Amino acid sequence: MLAGHRTWVFDQKPVIMATGTVGGPFEADGMLADDFDLLHSDLWLEQESYEKAHKVLFEEACLKAMEKGGLRKEQVQFILGGDLINQITPTSFACHTLGAPYIGLFGACSTSMEGLALGALIVNSKSAKYLLTGASSHNAAVEKQFRYPTEYGGQKPPTAQWTVTGAGAALLSDEGEGPRVTSATIGRVVDMGLTDPFNMGGAMAPAAVDTIEAHLTDRNVDPSYYDLIVTGDLGKIGHEVSLDLFKKHGTAIQEEQYKDCGMMIYREGQPVLSGASGPACSATVVYGHLLNRMKKGEFKRILVVATGALLSPLSFQQGETIPCIAHAVSIEFGE
Amino acid sequence: MLAGHRTWVFDQKPVIMATGTVGGPFEADGMLADDFDLLHSDLWLEQESYEKAHKVLFEEACLKAMEKGGLRKEQVQFILGGDLINQITPTSFACHTLGAPYIGLFGACSTSMEGLALGALIVNSKSAKYLLTGASSHNAAVEKQFRYPTEYGGQKPPTAQWTVTGAGAALLSDEGEGPRVTSATIGRVVDMGLTDPFNMGGAMAPAAVDTIEAHLTDRNVDPSYYDLIVTGDLGKIGHEVSLDLFKKHGTAIQEEQYKDCGMMIYREGQPVLSGASGPACSATVVYGHLLNRMKKGEFKRILVVATGALLSPLSFQQGETIPCIAHAVSIEFGE
Repeated sequence: MLAGHRTWVFDQKPVIMATGTVGGPFEADGMLADDFDLLHSDLWLEQESYEKAHKVLFEEACLKAMEKGGLRKEQVQFILGGDLINQITPTSFACHTLGAPYIGLFGACSTSMEGLALGALIVNSKSAKYLLTGASSHNAAVEKQFRYPTEYGGQKPPTAQWTVTGAGAALLSDEGEGPRVTSATIGRVVDMGLTDPFNMGGAMAPAAVDTIEAHLTDRNVDPSYYDLIVTGDLGKIGHEVSLDLFKKHGTAIQEEQYKDCGMMIYREGQPVLSGASGPACSATVVYGHLLNRMKKGEFKRILVVATGALLSPLSFQQGETIPCIAHAVSIEFGE
Repeated sequence: MLAGHRTWVFDQKPVIMATGTVGGPFEADGMLADDFDLLHSDLWLEQESYEKAHKVLFEEACLKAMEKGGLRKEQVQFILGGDLINQITPTSFACHTLGAPYIGLFGACSTSMEGLALGALIVNSKSAKYLLTGASSHNAAVEKQFRYPTEYGGQKPPTAQWTVTGAGAALLSDEGEGPRVTSATIGRVVDMGLTDPFNMGGAMAPAAVDTIEAHLTDRNVDPSYYDLIVTGDLGKIGHEVSLDLFKKHGTAIQEEQYKDCGMMIYREGQPVLSGASGPACSATVVYGHLLNRMKKGEFKRILVVATGALLSPLSFQQGETIPCIAHAVSIEFGE
């Protein structure tokens, strides 16, 4: 099941039976509104704090995936998830409501694929029949914690990105119909010495490149094996940086097959600067939009590479650089 | 490999080839000083911040485990770990230095067994030959974040616990000699409505009881199957609460076989109030003291139940209750 040094190949090809995706008002106004199961017009979700709203996003995504998969709560054996908030309280609090045994993860914006990789490994080894995995973020809760409260109105440079308000969850099983998880490559921590928290994409790009190249080597395939290689939230700047790195390394990835979730979710004209970010970015775009396109037959094989910046407000204040990571998971459908 | 609803039984019985345990000055003065591989007389570890010292603790524990296991850095395929600091930066930064692919976890003080459970599953399914898993905490870094800077001199009630400064790591493999990981039970989030962050043990006790009882049911064994059932950091108060709950539920756990790492690590007279806590508490006591006693033949089968309080300073300030979790892993040696 191990290919190369850090890639898992799943011989049982765990099935993504169903997914749930939830978004906020900014996402409802974006390019992919039709791909969300549930959209909220109010950033507060009728809760008394942004953190409580954040928790509800994750609960709803999980409940939606169960509903679409035709499962009751008691049938879900494990939930693997995480978010960006200190001590990942939105996810932990949601898992109290959801009731299933819980494996808390922290991979910043790479959490979606960290969870899908581990979840697929658990199902593949027959250590669960049904499990949920997902990730979430809430723009105002994250901005308040990492930068300034949004009410402060601080200006941002064009390299900054917009944290997605939303959640995406996938229900995995060893049976049923749907896209299948075929392999995963776990990322190393890559730190190129960047220190600007308003340029996460640039900092994360080398981590994405490292993981993609390791994946191709470990599986011994060409980039052309995939119809689409999609990163999590590099944004415009990070996307360009990563393309430059591939060129420099002689990795034959074509611009047409290489996209970024952070550049898909919003419309031209929405004030998102370099693009979207946040754990919910890849979680909602992949579990909504991209799997929908797979089911329509547009892609047979995709490689999702969720990217995460492993800084904290404190590590930034202490003058530390921004270590980054990327986890890659391949999903296949049809044939 | 799945027993019952949420217990994994590892047929390959992954081996704990070697461990590394590191402690600070308070631990050096404690009951288990002889069981640490490395003790620091200075809380700063010659670093310029407590968070950097925290990072070094985890690095050293991992390096010590590799050294004792006779492995080079490049042979370690994955590191699974986490800590209590926002965005688990000490662990992530350490994994940059260590270089191996990294799976970040958040389970608060339950992280040690969350990592050992997942690590054993990965090795058991032949998805890694060698991996490291561990957890760490630093008293002053944690106090500063969760309560007050220690320099403030705030008084605490007798239910409060003392966060361990230290780190414990285990090197797992499918070969070699040593104690073996035989099963794991993943915890559910349990919240009994407690809100006092100075009484974590009391809040965590019901989660420990829930996981232990689920483990015994899933594996269909009596408590007497284990020579020792040891919780992570319930402390005196939580330990008593959990014994009361076992009695109430008719679970036949004897006081002699039921201990708590948080009540073992320090001496009588050290000002630790209800006992020790922190992710490093169970990690250092189990990977140091308890495995040493197993190797001397004192125990053949132990069940380690690491307990975690999933709150954040913000969730406490917002008036939320304290959700808790416990993950259990059985370790066997000899026969």
